[in-house]
Order: sequence, then structure tokens, then C-alpha cells
Amino acid sequence: MADTALMDKLVSLCKRRGFVFQSSEIYGGLGSVWDYGPLGVELKRNVKEHWWRAMVHARDDIEGLDAAILMHPRVWEASGHVSGFTDPLVDCRHCKNRFRADDPRIKGTPGQPDAQCPICGSRGTLTEPRMFNLMFKTFMGPVEEQAAVVYLRPETAQGIYVNYLNVLQSSRQKVPFGIAQIGKAFRNEITPGNFIFRTREFEQMEMQFFVKPGTDGEWFEQWRELRMQWHHSLGLTPSRLQWHEHGPDELAHYARAAYDIQYQFPFGWQEIEGIHNRGDFDLGRHQEFSGKKLEYFDQAGNQRFLPNIVETSAGADRVTLTLLVDGYREEQVDGETRVVLGVHPALAPIKAGVFPLVKKDGMPELATRLYHDLKQRFPCFYDDSGAIGRRYRRMDEAGTPFCLTVDGETTVNQTVTIRHRDSMRQERVGVERVGEVISAEMESDRWQVTSGK
Amino acid sequence: MADTALMDKLVSLCKRRGFVFQSSEIYGGLGSVWDYGPLGVELKRNVKEHWWRAMVHARDDIEGLDAAILMHPRVWEASGHVSGFTDPLVDCRHCKNRFRADDPRIKGTPGQPDAQCPICGSRGTLTEPRMFNLMFKTFMGPVEEQAAVVYLRPETAQGIYVNYLNVLQSSRQKVPFGIAQIGKAFRNEITPGNFIFRTREFEQMEMQFFVKPGTDGEWFEQWRELRMQWHHSLGLTPSRLQWHEHGPDELAHYARAAYDIQYQFPFGWQEIEGIHNRGDFDLGRHQEFSGKKLEYFDQAGNQRFLPNIVETSAGADRVTLTLLVDGYREEQVDGETRVVLGVHPALAPIKAGVFPLVKKDGMPELATRLYHDLKQRFPCFYDDSGAIGRRYRRMDEAGTPFCLTVDGETTVNQTVTIRHRDSMRQERVGVERVGEVISAEMESDRWQVTSGK
Repeated sequence: MADTALMDKLVSLCKRRGFVFQSSEIYGGLGSVWDYGPLGVELKRNVKEHWWRAMVHARDDIEGLDAAILMHPRVWEASGHVSGFTDPLVDCRHCKNRFRADDPRIKGTPGQPDAQCPICGSRGTLTEPRMFNLMFKTFMGPVEEQAAVVYLRPETAQGIYVNYLNVLQSSRQKVPFGIAQIGKAFRNEITPGNFIFRTREFEQMEMQFFVKPGTDGEWFEQWRELRMQWHHSLGLTPSRLQWHEHGPDELAHYARAAYDIQYQFPFGWQEIEGIHNRGDFDLGRHQEFSGKKLEYFDQAGNQRFLPNIVETSAGADRVTLTLLVDGYREEQVDGETRVVLGVHPALAPIKAGVFPLVKKDGMPELATRLYHDLKQRFPCFYDDSGAIGRRYRRMDEAGTPFCLTVDGETTVNQTVTIRHRDSMRQERVGVERVGEVISAEMESDRWQVTSGK
Repeated sequence: MADTALMDKLVSLCKRRGFVFQSSEIYGGLGSVWDYGPLGVELKRNVKEHWWRAMVHARDDIEGLDAAILMHPRVWEASGHVSGFTDPLVDCRHCKNRFRADDPRIKGTPGQPDAQCPICGSRGTLTEPRMFNLMFKTFMGPVEEQAAVVYLRPETAQGIYVNYLNVLQSSRQKVPFGIAQIGKAFRNEITPGNFIFRTREFEQMEMQFFVKPGTDGEWFEQWRELRMQWHHSLGLTPSRLQWHEHGPDELAHYARAAYDIQYQFPFGWQEIEGIHNRGDFDLGRHQEFSGKKLEYFDQAGNQRFLPNIVETSAGADRVTLTLLVDGYREEQVDGETRVVLGVHPALAPIKAGVFPLVKKDGMPELATRLYHDLKQRFPCFYDDSGAIGRRYRRMDEAGTPFCLTVDGETTVNQTVTIRHRDSMRQERVGVERVGEVISAEMESDRWQVTSGK
């Protein structure tokens, strides 16, 4: 399947089954902004929950945080975003359109007489590149003036840095320790795109780990390993995950080392998470700009130091997209195309479909009872409309790992058919055992693809 | 205790124990913006999870949604927010300060010669009231011009209305059905305040229920009852919850009826949730402004209609504050003041503290093992520092319902002391039974204050 065809099919599936809708679609949409529908919100919730459990609940040395999107404007001076978070843009003086200076459609060098506008075709009308800041700005309070400018955070990390002392003191943690956060961030991207991959509003899952200087190298390696393991635990195809080391030209000026975890999307290998050794840049800058001492006193070593930071920064939307892309399959079954979303049962929005084979002979009553029993434990979907094959197909597209059918035999011996999404294998299971069978499958090792395999 | 004193103490507790910090505190803070610390993020997560379970997972007729904060600007024309979401403000021509026109500090009538500026005291310098919109505006794309203006949503509800058809079609629901959403909203309030009660950035838990015209009255009554029950299920003091019916002067022009659920805060009875019968205003406006038919075809009745909407709109930050205020207690115990945060065990950020009585005789090893066992099931906190009484006090302030102490007897007969937060009662329980005892308490009826009591 051609790569753009796959993305088109995925976008179509996402709308059809209620994973992702275009924002404000009835008004023609808002560029590169997307809304999560009933299945998408559950899938993304499961991704975030999986991350929070691994990063906060399962560990003794990481605390959670939820800092606001709006922050004091000085934060962005300290972080370097006011001066440095910019893209070079050029204008066409003739048609008034604006482009990134590195737009591949521009012929020639912007600012030169031979440069040609990609929209109106005029020559020599493109300006020299000028820098534009990627932060969304707004005004707090009723007056629109410079003093009232605040920005929508372009990353959640700064909310962690400025709260580091408060978290340290209230949680009674000791270095090394981490602070984890999930939240929205905003970037006024000039060229967003690829569905929910690069959007202007997005959600990050970031963890900042504060360590003693000199130990940053080993912690960096440890976090690289742990984070790659986490992506494998989602059941992603191992060969579609790889490391990308930032070369000297890519490395941010404050970073000692940086690796991206990339996934092989239809549009190429792209970053889904970054692991960065940021040294003492962040706390150093905030100490300088705020005038507040941010040093840590190490009682054991009887010394003061500014902790170094190892960051793990993943995109919740990107991981969600990864699951959709990785799980999407088309198969030929009995001369028809079966579309399957093969996501890990623990992440699937709906765990089980429950069907009465026909709407009579007591089957709806038994199926309804089973549905309500199971719904206490996990999200289920009841469906009694259409042929059983069509009901299977709808659940396949929703990524539902199990379908349970109540039929004539159920009324006799209290068993139902459990049908497995990926293999389409069917087996009979006692009604009272269905819940535990599904729970066991959700925790089963066979879904946990580990990096060793 | 004086009411302002209680709020001051609560704000202090919230900082000390890591529930809520002032945003960007090291930079002097950002007005009325707050960050949730390690305990606060768990408390608020539990509130949101409790709501999502009740409103989405436990019901067959409500679908979840997560629409973006940024929406098409026409949405806010249709909703009436561009023209109507305004506050009247006056300026002092002398000192340049700006006030709400109804600021009680203003003497006289703004615009009149006798009106006196509350800041500089000048007379006759206050302008006539002028309207200012409460929506935060920003610019999408690199150009700051009118065409690029987008707003930060001032409510999540509109994201539900514009997605109503997409959700209906993809979920195969039938009217009556609802769409539920949790998400951030922003209002450029002139007078925010009362800690996390009225903030410029806040999180809403909204559900819009789409019903057949003529049935809106009965659904409105049903949702009033269900939502009040939900607040009771949080374990709040029943006498501190009341209904407030919107009189003709308060009722929004589009609303047929509106009731607030109010909580008795130290600063007065205030709204924590609104239940509104919105009629067909919302879908009617979006149908008009988008030009898209938003009617529903009712197969059973063979008729087309524009669904009416019953809205339930709660504030996640407000409910969290309610829990903090309702739970805060000071008690005299053995001549010392004990501060307790009496929140429902199911909502408490930490479920159990685990302590070795002393750091020797094998107790730390046993306590560590118990801690790690329990941590598989729910958040726990290990503490081996200071006298046992001090450790209890720290957990009391964190709202932790149970403390488990490993002592000399544990090494002999495998039992630990379980100490209950509210009664301070202690009992011995077998180590292997601790997990189920706590789980049973979290689900116990005695915490579920129902409206009938």
C-alpha cells in the first residue's frame, strides 16, 4: 500500500469509528487541529495512564505534577524561548503570502532578484528571511499591551523546573529523583501536518530527572533503556522503532547528549520521544533569572550543587498515532477486505463486544446480563444489529480484541463463543469465566513485545 | 476559626504538603494561576476519574470526547461569546488604572463628575463603562492580524456541540444520548480569586445530553438528581451542599431553566456545578452559522428534529477545592493541634503510609516488602524518619486514610498495626490481609454519604 494511501485510510477509519475528528469540521475545520472522538479519547487515556503508572505510580523516586499552561513571561526569557524559539520566514511583496525560508517550493535564494514566489510566481519579490517566534502569545487582564503579554507554554518542561524546589521540599525526595507531568503545549508551527503527528496544540508526557553532577551520563543511559522498553511494552513492531542520535549540528546548545526514539511512520522515520542530557542549563538559567538559589544540599556528601537534568519527553498524540499506524492492517478474508486495528488489549478502547446471535429465544437477555457484568470490569460494547460477521468487522476496526457471542448453546450449557480479533480463532468458554479469560489476556506476556525478542 | 484564616491555613497546607503551588512562584507568581503538586495532581486525577467512570464508563448512553482548546473562530460567533461574553470596565483618565464598573470601591457613578477613582482618589476622571471580552485571544500562523485571531475556549461545551453529528454517526447512539468531556478552558477574568476557586485557567467536566424536544424537562430533573448524588458520593458534608435556582434576572437568555449546585465555602455559598436546560439554542445556532443540517432523524417516530440539550457543567478545580475545604479539620490531641484532611479513601492521593517502628531488628525489611506489595495495588508512602506520632501527623495532613506500622510483634506473628486517620483507632491485622482490608474500606458504604441521610 502506498504510504499516503495508508495515511488517508487511517484518517478515514479514525473519523468513521470515532477515533479522531477534524476540529470544528462543520465550519470547514481549523488547520491541523484535531479532536479525539469516543474511541480516540479512550485510546489516548490508556496511553497516558500506562505512562503515568510506569513513570509515577510504579516508582518511588518520581513525583507527579500538573503545572498550568499559563506561566510568568520571565520563564520564557530564562528558558531561551523568547529569543531563540524562532523560524526564519520570508514574505512575497507581491501576493503577500508568507513561507518558511527553507520551503522546498521556493526557487532560488529568498532576498535575491532571481528568487521565485511559489504561489504567484513573481521573481525578486521575496523578502530576506526574518525570524518569527513559534510561541502563541496572548494578553492577561483586559489591556492588550506589552506588559500584559503571556505565552501558551511551548513545552511542559519549564513548569517542572520552576516547581523543582517546591516539589523537593513537600515530597521529601532526595536527589536523584524525578518529576513527571502530562499536559498540553502549543507551538505556532508554520508547517504542521501528517494528521496528529505535528499539530499546533499537542499533549506531552515529560519527566525531568534531577541527578548529582557527574552521574548524568549513567542516568542518561538508564533512561534511554527504560524508555525504549516502555515503547516496546505497548506492543509496537520492534523493527519500526530505532534510535537517532543527535549529531553536533542537531544538538541544542545546552544539551550534552540527545537521542530520539523514532518510529517508522508511512511518512518516514520520525521522533516520538526525546531523551536529553541537559546538564545544569535549566536550573542554572532559572537561578540566574529568578535570583532564587536552586541548589541542592546533599547531606550524605555534605555538599551543595545544582542538579543536572536528564529529560524524557514523549508526545501523547504521537504515541497514539504510532499505535494506530502500527495496528492498522488489511487482510483478505473470504474474498472481502478485513480492516483490523491490532492494538494491545490493555490499550484498546473497548475490550469486548457482546452479541446475541439473534434477537430471540432468550439470547438478548443473556447477552445483556453478560454485557452488564463485564462492564463493571472494563469498557464493552453491546451490538445486536446486522449479521454476526458485520458485527465482528466493526469491532475489528475499533481494535476490540474479543467478541463474545451468545447463541442457542448458551441457553443450554452456559457457554459463549469468544472470538479473537487477530487470529479470528473461536472457542467456547463458560459464561462465568469470560471476565477472567479477558483479564488474563490483557496481562498476558504474549502481547508484551520486549526488546530482547 | 475565621473564614479567611481557614483559607490561609488551607493554602499553607497545600503548599507544605504539595497539593497546590503558586504558578511561577520563583518569579513572584502569576496572578491567580496555580500548579498542582504531587498530592494535588493525584487528588484531582481521582476526582476526574470518579467523574469519568460515573458519566462515561458506567453508562451506555454517554460517549466521551476530547476536543481541542483551539477552535474555529466562527464557533464563538455562533455561541454568542464574541458579542456577549463581556464585562463592563471603566478607566481612570488620571492614574490609568482599570476597574470593573461594579467595583464596590468606586464611589459614585462612573462617567459622572462626582465619581471617585478608588486608587488615586481623583474625581470625575472615571470613564463611562465600556465592554471588554473575557476570551483570551491569540494569533494562529505567523501573522498577527484580524484574520488569524483564534480564542482559547472559554468553555468546553462548544467542542461537544460542533462534534455532535460526528459522535452520533461513529458511535451509533440514538437520541437521547450524551457526550462527556474533561478539559481546560480559559477566561480573562477581571477579578479572579479565592485560591483555585476562580482562576483564569481552569478545568471543566461537562456533559451535554441530547434529547427529544418536549422531554427536556424530565431529563433536566433526572440530571439534577444524578449530579447531586454524585457530589454526595464524594463524601461531602450534606448540609454544605444546596441548590440555587437561577431567577429570571440570572437566567441566560437561551436557558429554559438552570440550577447551580452550591457548596458552602469559607467565602460563602458558591457554584461548583451548573445544570442547565438549554433547549435547542446551541444546535440551532450552529446549524445557522455553519449552514450544516444538524437535525436528528428519529426512526421510531419517523420524524426529524433538532435535539434539545440538558447540560451538566462542573469545575474539576472547584470540586477539588471542595474536597480540601470539606476535609480540613483541626483537632486537639494530647495538648497538640492535629491537622487532618478527611477526604474519602477512594479519592485520597495516598491510600496508606507504611512505617517500620524502628530502623532495626528486621523491621525495615518487612516494612519495605509490605510497601512494595501494596504499591502494586494503590499509591503508598514509605516513611522511616522521626517519631511514629510525627509520621502519623504528616499522613493526616496528606489525607492518607490508613497507616501501617511494622513493629516487634510483626516479626513474631506476621501482623501489623493499622491506624485509621479519622478515628485514630488502631487494630492489628495479618500482613497478608492488609490489602483487602484497605480495598474494602475504600468501597465501604460508610464513606458514601447519600442524599437520603
